[in-house]
Amino acid sequence: MNERYEKNMNNENNKGVMVIGLGSMGMGAAKSCVKAGLTTYGVDINTELLNELKAFGAEAVSTNASDFASVIDTVLLLVVNASQVKHILFTSGLCENLSTGTTVMVSSTISATDAKDIEVKLKEKNLIMLDAPVSGGAVKAAAGEMTVMASGSEKAFENLAPVLGAVAGKVYKIGQDIGQGSTVKIVHQLLAGVHIAAAAEAMALAARANIPLDTMYDVVTNAAGNSWMFENRMQHVLDGDYSPKSMVDIFVKDLGLVSDTAKDLKFPLYLANPALSMFVNASNMGLGKEDDSAVIKIFSGIELPGGDK
Amino acid sequence: MNERYEKNMNNENNKGVMVIGLGSMGMGAAKSCVKAGLTTYGVDINTELLNELKAFGAEAVSTNASDFASVIDTVLLLVVNASQVKHILFTSGLCENLSTGTTVMVSSTISATDAKDIEVKLKEKNLIMLDAPVSGGAVKAAAGEMTVMASGSEKAFENLAPVLGAVAGKVYKIGQDIGQGSTVKIVHQLLAGVHIAAAAEAMALAARANIPLDTMYDVVTNAAGNSWMFENRMQHVLDGDYSPKSMVDIFVKDLGLVSDTAKDLKFPLYLANPALSMFVNASNMGLGKEDDSAVIKIFSGIELPGGDK
Repeated sequence: MNERYEKNMNNENNKGVMVIGLGSMGMGAAKSCVKAGLTTYGVDINTELLNELKAFGAEAVSTNASDFASVIDTVLLLVVNASQVKHILFTSGLCENLSTGTTVMVSSTISATDAKDIEVKLKEKNLIMLDAPVSGGAVKAAAGEMTVMASGSEKAFENLAPVLGAVAGKVYKIGQDIGQGSTVKIVHQLLAGVHIAAAAEAMALAARANIPLDTMYDVVTNAAGNSWMFENRMQHVLDGDYSPKSMVDIFVKDLGLVSDTAKDLKFPLYLANPALSMFVNASNMGLGKEDDSAVIKIFSGIELPGGDK
Repeated sequence: MNERYEKNMNNENNKGVMVIGLGSMGMGAAKSCVKAGLTTYGVDINTELLNELKAFGAEAVSTNASDFASVIDTVLLLVVNASQVKHILFTSGLCENLSTGTTVMVSSTISATDAKDIEVKLKEKNLIMLDAPVSGGAVKAAAGEMTVMASGSEKAFENLAPVLGAVAGKVYKIGQDIGQGSTVKIVHQLLAGVHIAAAAEAMALAARANIPLDTMYDVVTNAAGNSWMFENRMQHVLDGDYSPKSMVDIFVKDLGLVSDTAKDLKFPLYLANPALSMFVNASNMGLGKEDDSAVIKIFSGIELPGGDK
């Protein structure tokens, strides 16, 4: 299921790629396209980010995606959510201007239902979709080593091979049906979110019991109770450093998508729903833009390292 | 905080060690004591296990702990729970027969409250306690490589140095106060239990959405949503093999201790309490003696690998 696409593919038969959304993941992906020798166009509403990408070697940049509609044959969308994806494709008029057969890789984290809705509308215009959420964080994006969980037609994978080769370290081909890629990402986010919330609950309980938190961290990270998220995020708690690597509000959104997905599928969420409530509560405390490890601050009556920060 | 004790310590000044409870952890610990050259006595109610340990080289074995009270100066207790610990020490009369200064290492997973109660009673008889829960599973126990999370006096650590050297790969000295070792173990079990329950919830949601479970497993184990428990336990689900490596009922007990601890400390458990309910429900479905990954069977309306097993 796991395919590695060649970097620096022969680009002769390909026109350009337009990367829309130059946040930490999008910028990394766009620069990786430039590095791989693809003719790369960048689109964002932030002109500073556009200038950064232009200076890095992009062919051209713009705040208006339609500017490049005629010169590209692949689009990579890395905006924040489904409503932004829909706005760019269908409200801004981009979709009307793209050439028949243009392949659109939708890499924002969205629900399977939204992914399927988007596919239907793209098909009406003879455009091809790959349902292709990503993970790995900004560092992997910058290195062209994102993990892509993708579903779609063989044709979609084929057309996007140069782009996948440029941006991905790993490509999981989940299946042929649009929605499967999104679902896998959402199930992954269930685990990621619950693990952060569980890490916070455990460390807060240790604090409440006056266990030294560095000892607790040392024990857990060397034992079967460890998770990737515990090890990564609880270091931020030990450091008292809640500057955002990934924000609380990302999990308000992503566990919200988990909850929507479970509702659609009539599935009970014993753990993901209370974890969502923990992040929502943290956000309502004004912590939405802090690092997601700040969810530990919902626990009162404990003392945390660097409490004054 | 992490100390490694020498194996094969000079044993001249030490009398024997009595290991009580020869389950998978206790048997491994007892054999490790024999291998390290300690004069080892074994106690269990199961004579087959006693014969196994005798054949391995134990000095003597018995169903009655008091038989060896006068020839040992250290006791390692690895029975199932606090009520068994209390029964052996205080009801069976062992405590009355032990020599002054005998050091008792209590390695069962028990609450901090029980640990403190036991210490008070041991102190009345001039016996020394180490609050020393363990982890690592049967394989590590057999190799003399258990992880020990211990709290107690310097004297307790000193007296038990030969035993810790024989049975432990790692010893965390949490602090001086009895109860701290138990609390660290319980916080660890919070994470372990929640992670198994979250793994089950995620894989069941993937099954409900018709995502191939081997693909889902592959994605998660290579991404930030991974946990030690997800990787270990969900392999059992993929294999359809619920033969117990560790049983559902262990987490009914251990998450019960988490819940008791939180009640004592007035601490809210957003995730550990619903996880406990998941294991309790699984146990009530008749799955208590199955592998703890069988908690995934509480989800109806999904198809799992090896459904006929």
